[in-house]
Amino acid sequence: MQFELSGIYNYKKINLDKINKIQRKKIITNVFSKKSSTMLGWLDLVDLSEEDICKIEDFAFETRKKFKNFVVLGIGGSALGTKMIKHAFFDSINKNDKIKSFVCDNIDSDYFLSLLKSLNLKKTIFNVITKSGTTSETLAQLSIVIDFLKKKNISLSKNIFVTTTRDNELYKFAISNHIKVFEIPESVGGRFSVLSNVGLVPASIIGLNIRDLLKGAEKIKENSQLLDLTNIAYTTAYINFKGLQNNLTNLVIMPYSDRLALVSDYFAQLWAESLGKKYDLNGKEVFTGQNPIKAVGVTDQHSQLQLFTEGPNDKLFMFIKVKENLYDFQLNENIRFAPYLKDISLSKLLEYEFLSTQFSLTCLNKLNYGIYLDKINEESIGELIFYLQMTTAFMGELLNVNTYDQNGVETSKKFTKACLNVVGLKKEGKLIKEFINNRRFIKL
Amino acid sequence: MQFELSGIYNYKKINLDKINKIQRKKIITNVFSKKSSTMLGWLDLVDLSEEDICKIEDFAFETRKKFKNFVVLGIGGSALGTKMIKHAFFDSINKNDKIKSFVCDNIDSDYFLSLLKSLNLKKTIFNVITKSGTTSETLAQLSIVIDFLKKKNISLSKNIFVTTTRDNELYKFAISNHIKVFEIPESVGGRFSVLSNVGLVPASIIGLNIRDLLKGAEKIKENSQLLDLTNIAYTTAYINFKGLQNNLTNLVIMPYSDRLALVSDYFAQLWAESLGKKYDLNGKEVFTGQNPIKAVGVTDQHSQLQLFTEGPNDKLFMFIKVKENLYDFQLNENIRFAPYLKDISLSKLLEYEFLSTQFSLTCLNKLNYGIYLDKINEESIGELIFYLQMTTAFMGELLNVNTYDQNGVETSKKFTKACLNVVGLKKEGKLIKEFINNRRFIKL
Repeated sequence: MQFELSGIYNYKKINLDKINKIQRKKIITNVFSKKSSTMLGWLDLVDLSEEDICKIEDFAFETRKKFKNFVVLGIGGSALGTKMIKHAFFDSINKNDKIKSFVCDNIDSDYFLSLLKSLNLKKTIFNVITKSGTTSETLAQLSIVIDFLKKKNISLSKNIFVTTTRDNELYKFAISNHIKVFEIPESVGGRFSVLSNVGLVPASIIGLNIRDLLKGAEKIKENSQLLDLTNIAYTTAYINFKGLQNNLTNLVIMPYSDRLALVSDYFAQLWAESLGKKYDLNGKEVFTGQNPIKAVGVTDQHSQLQLFTEGPNDKLFMFIKVKENLYDFQLNENIRFAPYLKDISLSKLLEYEFLSTQFSLTCLNKLNYGIYLDKINEESIGELIFYLQMTTAFMGELLNVNTYDQNGVETSKKFTKACLNVVGLKKEGKLIKEFINNRRFIKL
Repeated sequence: MQFELSGIYNYKKINLDKINKIQRKKIITNVFSKKSSTMLGWLDLVDLSEEDICKIEDFAFETRKKFKNFVVLGIGGSALGTKMIKHAFFDSINKNDKIKSFVCDNIDSDYFLSLLKSLNLKKTIFNVITKSGTTSETLAQLSIVIDFLKKKNISLSKNIFVTTTRDNELYKFAISNHIKVFEIPESVGGRFSVLSNVGLVPASIIGLNIRDLLKGAEKIKENSQLLDLTNIAYTTAYINFKGLQNNLTNLVIMPYSDRLALVSDYFAQLWAESLGKKYDLNGKEVFTGQNPIKAVGVTDQHSQLQLFTEGPNDKLFMFIKVKENLYDFQLNENIRFAPYLKDISLSKLLEYEFLSTQFSLTCLNKLNYGIYLDKINEESIGELIFYLQMTTAFMGELLNVNTYDQNGVETSKKFTKACLNVVGLKKEGKLIKEFINNRRFIKL
């Protein structure tokens, strides 16, 4: 991985030579000594024991032998990492692997039921993933899957396995039904869990080398403890922090790679849910956070780039570029009226477009930086994942917020439970009923 | 279609009763008399003649008979509408239709080449879509496809058709190669072209009823000429305009439907490229625009909602909700420890979650509104498309910008052409070369 800074050195309002070194040292030390939070267990995920790796690999091997379809039931942190990884390797994994994989992270019945109807359920294994074991959406999916399996006389214990925290209700439910459980450590939050069993087990089942994923992450973990500018994650967080201080309230995430398109979704959760906070750690109202804006190159040059160049000056840009593609193609002179499109490769054209976008934004004094992966493989994806997690952790420290909670979504959850007549929520039930009854519509 | 306003009447800073009626009348009249721009040809697309409809339907019928795969080559406005429509109907179209469709809107060689390698090219028809006929990415794709077809001795005229403007270079290229051409009117911009041949031909090929798409659009066209609050598109534009005046610089687009997930991408282009402008129509520097933020419910309740509720107060929210699903499922009491998840349907759970999110944002005085579709079918998708286009057109008038240009992307295009050694760009070539050579990297 390389970090490219041209768009920073050209930006007048940030001087990396004037970085606050005392603050940097304090933050890095705090994070790695785990002083700043009890939820830093994700830092240790890279040190998975040989025994635990083998357990995952063995289970994956058996699963791939027995099943044709693999379905993840999960939402948010239980799904976004696996979706990103799956998308990045859509084509490079062994074509002889016959296992097809699906991640169901919504409860839209059209999609979910049509999927279930289309699968040979005997040959399908479901991985139910929820850290708390109480996520309504995931439990609803599980409930439906149980009905489908029962109707076909398929044993739950063979076609379902669960990934959750030890001893919660779902864990007990699984044990009492002889369903296999992979554990999630208490100290690893959902959105930081992709390198735990949450993401490693699915990755292994779809045929990826999880040792290399962890190896890549380990490299970033080492780099993230350095106390100078070459600490890529800290430097990134610092740039974003200074950008936010200069009213760059939006962070555009723009991988120039189809295969990395879902990195934007993965990172959007990390960035939005970790940093979007009403209070800082001193209890002061701050309403802070930086809005992630998802984009993909070159496609978004024909969609959002107009806004990025000429619209409000409230954005900074994170580009992600892959240096070497798996395939490439030399263009011939087939289009006579576009003679400039010959003797170059398709990936060279993509590179030129990337550089042109980067340069034109830089000329407009728009803050931007680039992450370069040599190629897409398990190791580089492991690097990218851990880099994005470390950057988020450092940014949370710089903003002085609790990076690991998400109190803002509790109100909405409470109202849903009230709609479902859960006891103890009479007040909420009355309020939302009133709201529902008093809605005003304009009909076409 | 219905428009729901609870989140507006609860928002203190906008009073719909005080809407400027003179301005509204002027804008609506300007748009429909086509005074405000020469690029309002898209308004007439709904009035397609019986003859033209039959031409499309006949071509689609023949195509579906002869081919197994249908591949769109296009980017931006040539792709986003079709991607959205295709995704919305992933499952409801006739399963007996054996034609598989793909939209290639990026030049990432990994994806594009692996797709071409996987297809039986004899049974594959390619639709090259570019209004100007000069889009580099699309021409590069075409060049590669020509090579692939030539290698297999497949005639270009049988397996390619083109959608472009009359008499441009690509048009002539097609004619001289006996390739069929569907035309795009000069007065219809790319991002407003989904109801022209750009989107109608693909929609018909994948098996949709394009008469109903147009019928839905026609309904909104009529509604959009009304001079009161029941003009849904104008009212929406006005709310967004007032929101922007109150520093709500971001518009969150959040369909509560998997099938409508790509509406966010489609609308993001319309909103970003039409409104993100440096100058207003008087030539004054304004750097205006409203940043579209893509989300999908319920998934994003577990990702971006934390930021939406507790982060910066710089957003307003457009929800899209479907009232009736194609499939539904009654939950049974399979999960004993979550007794509230029984005797409700999956779509009811989704609805409760939607209402809870909407209500909790409303309680926080966050400006929001909802678009309700009765169900997903061609007519309602036609309504949605035209509603989003009309809303964008009215918003452009309110902001007093040129809704139909995109000068901000020209610099980047020029640098790309300079990289490709197009003549007349020596200065640009020197500048970007210098930039490329002086980049600074931090290596891991």
